[in-house]
Amino acid sequence: MNKFDFYNPTHIVFGKDRIGDLAKLVPSTGKVLILVGGSSAEKTGTLGQVREALGSRSHGTFTGIEPNPSFETCMKAVQMIREQGFNFLLAVGGGSVIDATKFIAAAVPFEGDAWDIMLKRGGNVQSALPFGVVLTLPATGSEMNSGGVITRKDIGAKLPFRSSLLYPKFSILDPTKTYTLPAKQLANGVVDAFVHTVEQYLTYPANAPVQDRFAEGLLQTLVEVGPKIMAATEPSYDDRANLMWTATLALNGLIGTGVPQDWSTHMIGHELTAKYDIDHARTLAIVLPAMLHERREQKREKLLQYGQRVWGIQSGSDDERISAAIEATRSFFESLGIPTRLSAYGVGSEAIDALIEQLQAHGMTKLGEHGDITPEVCRRVLVAAH
Amino acid sequence: MNKFDFYNPTHIVFGKDRIGDLAKLVPSTGKVLILVGGSSAEKTGTLGQVREALGSRSHGTFTGIEPNPSFETCMKAVQMIREQGFNFLLAVGGGSVIDATKFIAAAVPFEGDAWDIMLKRGGNVQSALPFGVVLTLPATGSEMNSGGVITRKDIGAKLPFRSSLLYPKFSILDPTKTYTLPAKQLANGVVDAFVHTVEQYLTYPANAPVQDRFAEGLLQTLVEVGPKIMAATEPSYDDRANLMWTATLALNGLIGTGVPQDWSTHMIGHELTAKYDIDHARTLAIVLPAMLHERREQKREKLLQYGQRVWGIQSGSDDERISAAIEATRSFFESLGIPTRLSAYGVGSEAIDALIEQLQAHGMTKLGEHGDITPEVCRRVLVAAH
Repeated sequence: MNKFDFYNPTHIVFGKDRIGDLAKLVPSTGKVLILVGGSSAEKTGTLGQVREALGSRSHGTFTGIEPNPSFETCMKAVQMIREQGFNFLLAVGGGSVIDATKFIAAAVPFEGDAWDIMLKRGGNVQSALPFGVVLTLPATGSEMNSGGVITRKDIGAKLPFRSSLLYPKFSILDPTKTYTLPAKQLANGVVDAFVHTVEQYLTYPANAPVQDRFAEGLLQTLVEVGPKIMAATEPSYDDRANLMWTATLALNGLIGTGVPQDWSTHMIGHELTAKYDIDHARTLAIVLPAMLHERREQKREKLLQYGQRVWGIQSGSDDERISAAIEATRSFFESLGIPTRLSAYGVGSEAIDALIEQLQAHGMTKLGEHGDITPEVCRRVLVAAH
Repeated sequence: MNKFDFYNPTHIVFGKDRIGDLAKLVPSTGKVLILVGGSSAEKTGTLGQVREALGSRSHGTFTGIEPNPSFETCMKAVQMIREQGFNFLLAVGGGSVIDATKFIAAAVPFEGDAWDIMLKRGGNVQSALPFGVVLTLPATGSEMNSGGVITRKDIGAKLPFRSSLLYPKFSILDPTKTYTLPAKQLANGVVDAFVHTVEQYLTYPANAPVQDRFAEGLLQTLVEVGPKIMAATEPSYDDRANLMWTATLALNGLIGTGVPQDWSTHMIGHELTAKYDIDHARTLAIVLPAMLHERREQKREKLLQYGQRVWGIQSGSDDERISAAIEATRSFFESLGIPTRLSAYGVGSEAIDALIEQLQAHGMTKLGEHGDITPEVCRRVLVAAH
């Protein structure tokens, strides 16, 4: 096991009807800016519950944070906060709203051009507004970590940032808030949590059996509940709760302690989203099977372990079992209604050159757990993913 | 899954040679009281490393915290802190030193009789001195939770307490610090972590597959590394690291989120320690197999799952598989050199009446995940454990 630091002070408030807890979770002196995406938080009544719980606290609402939240939108919120003096932020939504809120929390007190936060990946964040979360979409894990991803439209960049000052003070996880989600977003959530787990697990053996088993436990649970959720005509509280908690645990830092990590699938996926606006989870479903195939030698031992423990693949030669594990992964994504080929999203093979150029422009030239996934390797992955 | 709150802000600093990190972890304005058990922290050089890392900070040392730390000893430290104005505590040791440090941290600013903290189980703690940990013994998990157990010698009471103000600010977990531990303490650590996990897992199904699998992952890891550690002639870094991280995760609150919990074995065990000074882990090894046998109907489904997933028990009738799972547990403890019968510790069956009286005196009359483990049930367990 490698050395590591683990620190995660986010207070998780989990269960049905917990939004009322905001009354004690938000400081009584808070002048609160609620941040939301579109109109669904209002329509579903969630915003009404939030406002009721805030009681007599002064509050405002910032609407319009888009999927793959943009720097441009975030800066509008920053201006509003600076002008009106909000001192507590409350993200009501999924990963996009939470990621945006993190960036905004850091940008409000930031001196100079706030884009510098992204260029330094958050390393230059010195202070941040406190913020909390009401989660409505289980997927990204942003509700219990200190990172996010922001897109800058004018230069087609989608970049990650992180700072230990950017953990939510609390996150309210109410599984019933997922009941109104469309099937597509639920499927995306399952795939997102799955690939987050895989990026921290499917590398090379590091003699970290607890981390391995925790990761496998998350993957097994997603394999169980994903299809049940997609097939259900009425939402099951327990299935939604298990998806929600699994997605949070998939990226709260725990399973990544003391082990090598990959993240190459994510970095290639970000370029696909930035250029073609494909949903984040879907880009992961496109890249991952091709990446696993490309890296089957470097990941040999963990691929065999993954096949056996997550998919129950016991028979055949090593190579056959590895192929079966990769195909099981692809089939799982497809079974959730998520295509795993670039061509299914209308992206032609002629697009690959430009994607590789973008990866290089963003410094993504030594990816993966060995730092040896070069742009040339990424090209092979994208060709195979077509 | 049940509703839950999870909050754990302790910063874990894990790996070899991390004690130097104290230089940045302890506030530079800290007037530090180091708390230790006996002389081993000095002899092994750990205290020297700690003092070197503290640099120019003013510091003192309080020595003499005993296993099953006593209220009486803790109050001596409280007096020393009040007199000399220490403002940061640093526990260097295992669960006993950490538990004592937590109680002392709460008692220093407490107004009135500090024993009231124990009578209210920590619910009346309003403030606490900040404290950190240098862990030398993997077992109790106290390094990453907010609870402890204190013994009052004059009345023969061993009671738990807990407060969200009592999380360590940081805990340094250096697996090499376990290299000098005697075999008995290592075996105790394995059993302690095992039973902590079982108390949160072996209850009844709550449709919480992630919590189940995390718990099973901890148990499987203990079953793997425990015998390797006991058999090794030279310590293995990875085995020690895996035991250390497993023991921490077994009681940091994570696997207990949203699921029923038992803790009856612990409450009976505490009485055995208070009255006969048997090591905590050994009391658990005595009580647990008998308790599982007594509760085999109430725990039927989870016992079958436990047998299959942790011990690979697949054949036989349900009753046979349950019996095999309980016997595997007993054999595992015995294989580590820990007897599982009360008689092996020189305690006669005539002692049972007094133990039951003590349980009643401490209000432990409705134990277990159903609250139906009465003193009469506890008596049957102790008779069976003899």
